[in-house]
Amino acid sequence: MDCMGGDHGPAVTLPACRAFLAAHPQAELLLVGLPEALQEAAAWPRVRIVPASEVVSMEDPIEVALRRKKDSSMRVAISQLKPGKDGTPALAQACVSAGNTGALMAVAKYLLKTLEGIDRPAIATVMPNQVGGFTTVLDLGANVDCGPEHLLQFAVMGSALVSAVDGKENPSVGLLNIGEEMIKGNETIKRAGELLREVAAHDQLNFHGNVEGNDIFKGTTDVVVCDGFVGNVALKTAEGLASMISSFIKAEFTRSAWTKLIALLAMPVLQRFKNRVDHRRFNGAALLGLRGLVFKSHGSADAFAFEQALNRAYDAARNRLLDRVHDRIVATLQALPAPANEEGVDAGDKAAAAAHAA
Amino acid sequence: MDCMGGDHGPAVTLPACRAFLAAHPQAELLLVGLPEALQEAAAWPRVRIVPASEVVSMEDPIEVALRRKKDSSMRVAISQLKPGKDGTPALAQACVSAGNTGALMAVAKYLLKTLEGIDRPAIATVMPNQVGGFTTVLDLGANVDCGPEHLLQFAVMGSALVSAVDGKENPSVGLLNIGEEMIKGNETIKRAGELLREVAAHDQLNFHGNVEGNDIFKGTTDVVVCDGFVGNVALKTAEGLASMISSFIKAEFTRSAWTKLIALLAMPVLQRFKNRVDHRRFNGAALLGLRGLVFKSHGSADAFAFEQALNRAYDAARNRLLDRVHDRIVATLQALPAPANEEGVDAGDKAAAAAHAA
Repeated sequence: MDCMGGDHGPAVTLPACRAFLAAHPQAELLLVGLPEALQEAAAWPRVRIVPASEVVSMEDPIEVALRRKKDSSMRVAISQLKPGKDGTPALAQACVSAGNTGALMAVAKYLLKTLEGIDRPAIATVMPNQVGGFTTVLDLGANVDCGPEHLLQFAVMGSALVSAVDGKENPSVGLLNIGEEMIKGNETIKRAGELLREVAAHDQLNFHGNVEGNDIFKGTTDVVVCDGFVGNVALKTAEGLASMISSFIKAEFTRSAWTKLIALLAMPVLQRFKNRVDHRRFNGAALLGLRGLVFKSHGSADAFAFEQALNRAYDAARNRLLDRVHDRIVATLQALPAPANEEGVDAGDKAAAAAHAA
Repeated sequence: MDCMGGDHGPAVTLPACRAFLAAHPQAELLLVGLPEALQEAAAWPRVRIVPASEVVSMEDPIEVALRRKKDSSMRVAISQLKPGKDGTPALAQACVSAGNTGALMAVAKYLLKTLEGIDRPAIATVMPNQVGGFTTVLDLGANVDCGPEHLLQFAVMGSALVSAVDGKENPSVGLLNIGEEMIKGNETIKRAGELLREVAAHDQLNFHGNVEGNDIFKGTTDVVVCDGFVGNVALKTAEGLASMISSFIKAEFTRSAWTKLIALLAMPVLQRFKNRVDHRRFNGAALLGLRGLVFKSHGSADAFAFEQALNRAYDAARNRLLDRVHDRIVATLQALPAPANEEGVDAGDKAAAAAHAA
């Protein structure tokens, strides 16, 4: 746990860690941060304090996180995921930080490197949907100008994530596109659709086909794949609309003494509605495609929200998300005709792919 | 008026036209469609029935609208915007249709052609915002893979639209981008930002800078510019979220006899909230950049919504939107250094630009 990240640092992360430990008797936590800030946790069971002398702030440019603050809690926390040079296993199986996304991705990529077969890591988050579940959307900001192969890799990683964390064995995947017949997406999207269909034909992916923006909330598919620019715009647009609607509801219910009385009466109903769209429940975006499991909490998360990010990271580690991503990428590359799988697999995988092709 | 378009045809368009005529004593309408379907309107004042023998359905492919149904109400309505070959003025100053977007844009582009200095027409719609007004967003589906010059043209056209229809003389314009420091948008967006800043430096545009998805609903700028793919995803995502939220509110308020009673009490409050986000009030997307004013109503619009589209088209025509777009495009090209204004202006404009540059 990077205990120093986010807007509130240990004031939020420590209570969340304590609640998480109580709920998971098998779990152990490495709490990373300034020792004096983590003192109260020193006596907790199944906890070890890992000191770090610096903190990456929400405003620090990536370069500072990457090159200057080499003993930051973020960096030390991520480095717990690295196996020893002598082959000893890593000290931690997953890392959670509420630090700034750009810095977290840059440091994680630098320290951990990407998995075989993955060109670019992606960020995946979940959004609530109308059928009572969650839709996993990726990429959300780490990649712009994606090629078709990147979108295919996102699809495979998103599918692995949902199978590991949400327990669905064969999650459906939709490719975010636009509906107008006139255009039906650009060349990249069309080609990505072909690749996805090909992999699906070999039973390596449950590809639904194209989906539109509204399908995220309809819950048409378990996973929605798009490039980082489009994903970021969709997420921010949804956040903006939700915030506007919530402010309008508040304004109307506080307009007069009479409406305030009605609000009081309606409180349990409004509260249940609020719970259904409470973004804190969906906290914990996965950085996928790295040689280690890193989860990003929202910077403004409270203890409840931060604990959800811990839960997601814990489930991902328990259910071997890293192995799942690796296995699915290998299977995917085997399902594709030769030119598409020339890069990114190690020699053994290539031989397997060649054998498969033959 | 294309009276046959949309899901409901004359059952919706005729009542809307009647209400519009009552509200605007100066306005005259050409009602285009199957004469037998428009009979009731034949005796209305300030109305002329223009017969058309075919109807473009919502499912018709573009090719059918463009090449096969040459006497469709959509096509005949748009053709009323064309000046006579002998120089006689056009019979109508604006056209409204609820027909399918792809077909409408294709037919309008084919019949009217684009304005000087515009490479591609765009579709602009308005969304409600938190500061009590509307944000105009374009492009929304007509263009994918846009270059920086296209985004600049959208900015200028959106600005002209807001000044004509909403009466703001110098509307602010934001360029839709993503916030992560790590990426800050792709090359196209960066270059578009440069062009927009350049034009703003010559006082030809009120350019605010980059905005994010949530700024649409915050109302940070009057106009938000993006390519058609991103705009379509943002719009559909917002529609999907709004629909999910509305179904959640409904579900919670109809859960039991008690919550239904509360809903009854809260009805006036909920109704006022609903009015604030009622998308019918924002109906009427503008097809910009053509040599004629075409407005697109939502296919599922009711009479109230369709009337709003008429109002927008009427305001655009009254306030000379076409001239405004032309004038602003010329001024914009003059503000840019030579290479960017080599194409798309007629000889006279080029001479003016050259004079200005000298």
